[in-house]
Amino acid sequence: MTKKLRVAIAGASGYAGAELVRLAAAHPVYEITAVTSEKSSGQKVAAVFPSLAGLVSHTFEALAPEALAERADAIFLALPHTKSQDPVALCRKAGKLVVDLSADYRLKDVKAYEQWYQAPHAHPKMLNDAVYGLPELHRDAIAKAQLVASPGCYPTAAILQLAPLFAKGLVQPGTVVIDAKSGISGAGRSPALPYHFPEAHESLEPYKIGQHRHIPEIEQELSGVLTKSGAAAGAVTIAFTPHLVPMNRGILSTAYCKLNKPMSLPDLRALYRDFYNGERFVRLHEDSAPNPRYIKGSNYCDIGVYADQRAGWVVTVAAVDNLVKGAAGQAIQAMNLMMGIAEETGLTAPGVYP
Amino acid sequence: MTKKLRVAIAGASGYAGAELVRLAAAHPVYEITAVTSEKSSGQKVAAVFPSLAGLVSHTFEALAPEALAERADAIFLALPHTKSQDPVALCRKAGKLVVDLSADYRLKDVKAYEQWYQAPHAHPKMLNDAVYGLPELHRDAIAKAQLVASPGCYPTAAILQLAPLFAKGLVQPGTVVIDAKSGISGAGRSPALPYHFPEAHESLEPYKIGQHRHIPEIEQELSGVLTKSGAAAGAVTIAFTPHLVPMNRGILSTAYCKLNKPMSLPDLRALYRDFYNGERFVRLHEDSAPNPRYIKGSNYCDIGVYADQRAGWVVTVAAVDNLVKGAAGQAIQAMNLMMGIAEETGLTAPGVYP
Amino acid sequence: MTKKLRVAIAGASGYAGAELVRLAAAHPVYEITAVTSEKSSGQKVAAVFPSLAGLVSHTFEALAPEALAERADAIFLALPHTKSQDPVALCRKAGKLVVDLSADYRLKDVKAYEQWYQAPHAHPKMLNDAVYGLPELHRDAIAKAQLVASPGCYPTAAILQLAPLFAKGLVQPGTVVIDAKSGISGAGRSPALPYHFPEAHESLEPYKIGQHRHIPEIEQELSGVLTKSGAAAGAVTIAFTPHLVPMNRGILSTAYCKLNKPMSLPDLRALYRDFYNGERFVRLHEDSAPNPRYIKGSNYCDIGVYADQRAGWVVTVAAVDNLVKGAAGQAIQAMNLMMGIAEETGLTAPGVYP
Amino acid sequence: MTKKLRVAIAGASGYAGAELVRLAAAHPVYEITAVTSEKSSGQKVAAVFPSLAGLVSHTFEALAPEALAERADAIFLALPHTKSQDPVALCRKAGKLVVDLSADYRLKDVKAYEQWYQAPHAHPKMLNDAVYGLPELHRDAIAKAQLVASPGCYPTAAILQLAPLFAKGLVQPGTVVIDAKSGISGAGRSPALPYHFPEAHESLEPYKIGQHRHIPEIEQELSGVLTKSGAAAGAVTIAFTPHLVPMNRGILSTAYCKLNKPMSLPDLRALYRDFYNGERFVRLHEDSAPNPRYIKGSNYCDIGVYADQRAGWVVTVAAVDNLVKGAAGQAIQAMNLMMGIAEETGLTAPGVYP
Repeated sequence: MTKKLRVAIAGASGYAGAELVRLAAAHPVYEITAVTSEKSSGQKVAAVFPSLAGLVSHTFEALAPEALAERADAIFLALPHTKSQDPVALCRKAGKLVVDLSADYRLKDVKAYEQWYQAPHAHPKMLNDAVYGLPELHRDAIAKAQLVASPGCYPTAAILQLAPLFAKGLVQPGTVVIDAKSGISGAGRSPALPYHFPEAHESLEPYKIGQHRHIPEIEQELSGVLTKSGAAAGAVTIAFTPHLVPMNRGILSTAYCKLNKPMSLPDLRALYRDFYNGERFVRLHEDSAPNPRYIKGSNYCDIGVYADQRAGWVVTVAAVDNLVKGAAGQAIQAMNLMMGIAEETGLTAPGVYP
Repeated sequence: MTKKLRVAIAGASGYAGAELVRLAAAHPVYEITAVTSEKSSGQKVAAVFPSLAGLVSHTFEALAPEALAERADAIFLALPHTKSQDPVALCRKAGKLVVDLSADYRLKDVKAYEQWYQAPHAHPKMLNDAVYGLPELHRDAIAKAQLVASPGCYPTAAILQLAPLFAKGLVQPGTVVIDAKSGISGAGRSPALPYHFPEAHESLEPYKIGQHRHIPEIEQELSGVLTKSGAAAGAVTIAFTPHLVPMNRGILSTAYCKLNKPMSLPDLRALYRDFYNGERFVRLHEDSAPNPRYIKGSNYCDIGVYADQRAGWVVTVAAVDNLVKGAAGQAIQAMNLMMGIAEETGLTAPGVYP
Repeated sequence: MTKKLRVAIAGASGYAGAELVRLAAAHPVYEITAVTSEKSSGQKVAAVFPSLAGLVSHTFEALAPEALAERADAIFLALPHTKSQDPVALCRKAGKLVVDLSADYRLKDVKAYEQWYQAPHAHPKMLNDAVYGLPELHRDAIAKAQLVASPGCYPTAAILQLAPLFAKGLVQPGTVVIDAKSGISGAGRSPALPYHFPEAHESLEPYKIGQHRHIPEIEQELSGVLTKSGAAAGAVTIAFTPHLVPMNRGILSTAYCKLNKPMSLPDLRALYRDFYNGERFVRLHEDSAPNPRYIKGSNYCDIGVYADQRAGWVVTVAAVDNLVKGAAGQAIQAMNLMMGIAEETGLTAPGVYP
Repeated sequence: MTKKLRVAIAGASGYAGAELVRLAAAHPVYEITAVTSEKSSGQKVAAVFPSLAGLVSHTFEALAPEALAERADAIFLALPHTKSQDPVALCRKAGKLVVDLSADYRLKDVKAYEQWYQAPHAHPKMLNDAVYGLPELHRDAIAKAQLVASPGCYPTAAILQLAPLFAKGLVQPGTVVIDAKSGISGAGRSPALPYHFPEAHESLEPYKIGQHRHIPEIEQELSGVLTKSGAAAGAVTIAFTPHLVPMNRGILSTAYCKLNKPMSLPDLRALYRDFYNGERFVRLHEDSAPNPRYIKGSNYCDIGVYADQRAGWVVTVAAVDNLVKGAAGQAIQAMNLMMGIAEETGLTAPGVYP
């Protein structure tokens, strides 16, 4: 039997953190040694999250990165953006494997980071050490990495649904529109008026139109895929509008683009099947459409490809659970790779339907 | 006091029909003289719709157009597509004012109708008599019309959110993407698996991608606006994807396009303010975003205009209640014009929030 | 035409306040002269509540009771419990008609008030001047009153569903169980974790079991009905459990009791029909069951009576919209009576379904 | 390693059946050998339930009990009530372990069965062989059984929340009121108007008041517990009202009763702690309240005990996932016992929150 890996989870009183605890507690190779939260420090995890009663006996503690690093071989950090820079650096200095769920190490271009997040970066040199934690695109690099920057929830869907087209250099520049819809848990666990039940229910609203911080991540990664394709290198620019939808979990991302050469629907679908051949967590829909209802609680990204030949658009649709493949599950998937164990370990539960 | 207008409502056991009864019963100038339904014939309206108990005492009857026409001055028909062709013709033959809520008289091009609806049209010549019932675009023609084809729910939002740009010839051809989201009442009142609560709740799904029957309506009307603008005449072609969202009422339509010349956001918004100046049922959002939560039960179309200057897209967002401005309310708005009474009569109730 | 009544609404940035503005703005006899809110003072009402854009042009102002009283003939106060004591007294001192939506003047027994609300009462003598504002029980007293204490949302349903049985002295003491369920708008408009969308959705929770502040109101009023019945006078004691249910609006109250003599279901229903004969806002269900879906946005209280002869219980079910018949609508109903105009003025809109 | 147990699941195209497939497919000791459905015969399970794509490769087949029995060691039957009588008998005749999720073998009294289910029973003698599959009450008998009748969803909650009180003979006869609330998946997967999204959303309705078929099950089991207690033996009679609540999964059951002697809240809670000491799937809430949000997808029954000393009632609240502890999970829990493996095998996943 594999020796247990000591795992610490920092910033665990939010929804992504709670999901990390849920998945890590049931993980056959992990042993959770510490769970931190500033807000809930001193409280039992099971008192804050009664869904976990009977499963974990830990108490939230305040975050002290160096001390934490002594008690863990691998550390997940689910802290707010800009608050993860130093803890990551300290955990790395202590030689630990780190998966950071914040945006702090996702962008390679420190200027882009400082512009989109309106904050300086204290460790710009570490940005090159960090691997963007999307296993379907960066599996080998993740397996060799010590620091992984786990993708945002919207980018996971958007990149996976468009990567096959960019990888073949098929996308006509300037035609990409991504219209994304998220359940409210994507907004976090801190109450505020837009997420107050009577405001968010029977409600549907776009926000941060063309200004969401996930945009540079999506553009960086699609550009990288494009560059690898050998096709016209150069920046990818997208229109991106996120919406809040009255459901708890799930993202549905509908992406539109024009191709620079005509392709039939069967050829398009064959291209996706090839690209994702062997991928454990990507499922392609043909007779049905991706829908968050099929992936709740699971690590799948479901993708559908459609062609509007009449109007000349390719439409791709992707669904992920924002807290699993869009956060905690993907982080564990990367950590499994970093540890050298089977990528899907602890992540094989199917969605809870209905 | 205005003499009461005798009004009949055919096909009233669906949601749009029930909404017509709700609004007509409270209308100060209407007197409902007949309510028809094949399915519920013989049952009390208030037994089928207990929300209307105490308000209406009518009994559903089977539809007999000629007999109906004798008892009404004005007739609303909310029948299924393809089933309204003959009843409309018969009511018109009897000289009555008709507002038809089906698609049967919306398209001017009979071939387009027969292609999209997969049915022949029995009265193709009447298509030219019918006026497309969007008062904000066709007020004068509606006022003179005897037959109005009331717009679909998606087209109401899509046309109103894009018309000002097309009216100025500003839209770059081939760049229009409309990503629309509808509450489930838009799918009608007949139970089926996709609308079964556990399937539709915590769920979000695109359907009929690039194939929805509202597409030709939107293209016809935007082309008409474009042609009037004196700009490059010619067909408008759009990408259109509708989605089912877990709420009862409301449509949110997010439309993307590129302009053929740069415009600042203030100029864009000024253009919309001018275009909709004096319109009773169009409200422009600037500091907030349109959201179905503000228009439930009301006849408003709320519109917001946003500019993604970085990526070069204009994004417009429109919200309507699919059963009011997207169906029954708009039909009454047109009928009020046809009757020569104030357009807003019976339609001034604000949205029920939250 | 009736001269307009100048109306002020204090504490209008909550949901009940917003509903008062919605209904008062459309009321044919009211003219809103002031709208107050401490939190939103200085902001346009239509900016805080975009659903009301185009309907009201008022700006929220801070509450100054004496100044307010000069500008209004009638004043609605929707302030938090314990904060309404002085404003009510000041408005009354200025000779204005007052409907208070807080609990501050509902209980006749000042000790009960001080015990349940954990606060002293500054004007205990005024408790006798205040009439409990349930028109179906106290119509004549309300018509003569200068101060009406408008009932809580749960008590409206609970009292109306049980009053006919108590009025006949039929209820076996100690057998009354009221299991009530409320939509989340009943918890107000201030965000807090239990009402955060992901917590309240796919969720259902009892709270304040046997300790909710609406209990003394229900017991006071049912005792009063009982006393009038000439039957065994004496206190009524109930078990009462409220629950939060994932919907925006609506209360469903299920009440159980045993009778002190056997009665058939037809006799029970006849008793209710007699009791509520002529009541504009009470509807009795026989072939269907009360459901919030039939009363959203309307002032109705729908009631159903059922008999479990096998087990020996009478079960009554009542549905109200917590913001209309449970708050703003009922307040206007009372004010109409106080003003001497038709009780239903401004309140006749049916529910918005679905 | 334990040898795999060949498992067949009959009637698997409903929600309980799909849940059996989800749990059985991930069960470390089970190997699914057949999945039946009349409605979906010939279709891939993963095509009907895309949530299971990648997990199961089975095709639905029509039910042929004898043939099925040859291919399985253990058989779960999730057929409609009255349709399971013969298949159970045939599977038992073939010597297989059977867990039946229908009501057909739950009631010991064949007359009660025939009265409540309005159908004759073809195998009345087998009723005595069947063990009621609630492990917390009948663990030893289940372990020895060949046929287990798995409890209904409402009874699971109702019996577990009241058994400790009946086991001590504490409940005053005739005082038990159970007000239960269920998510819509409890109504099954066949579309019908009451479960059509726009009808069930923003909606809340009691049904079958005092007439629900789960009543005799609850009374039978509570009577059994009472009889064992040595207290006044005799029938238990309850008031029972189920309600449909707008959520997908979960039951919340609120039960009221009076005790025949006074007890403090601490004593009551100690009684429950003792009764459920060591139970893997019962969790007691003290500082929080049971809520379906904590148990979605898990096999837990969460229970809270409250005392309304003022009014003289004990209130207990129980939450289960109707498809897991209320159906598929409980069935597997029983089968695990029948097989002699650890009761919790395959059932340890915590709830998916939020």
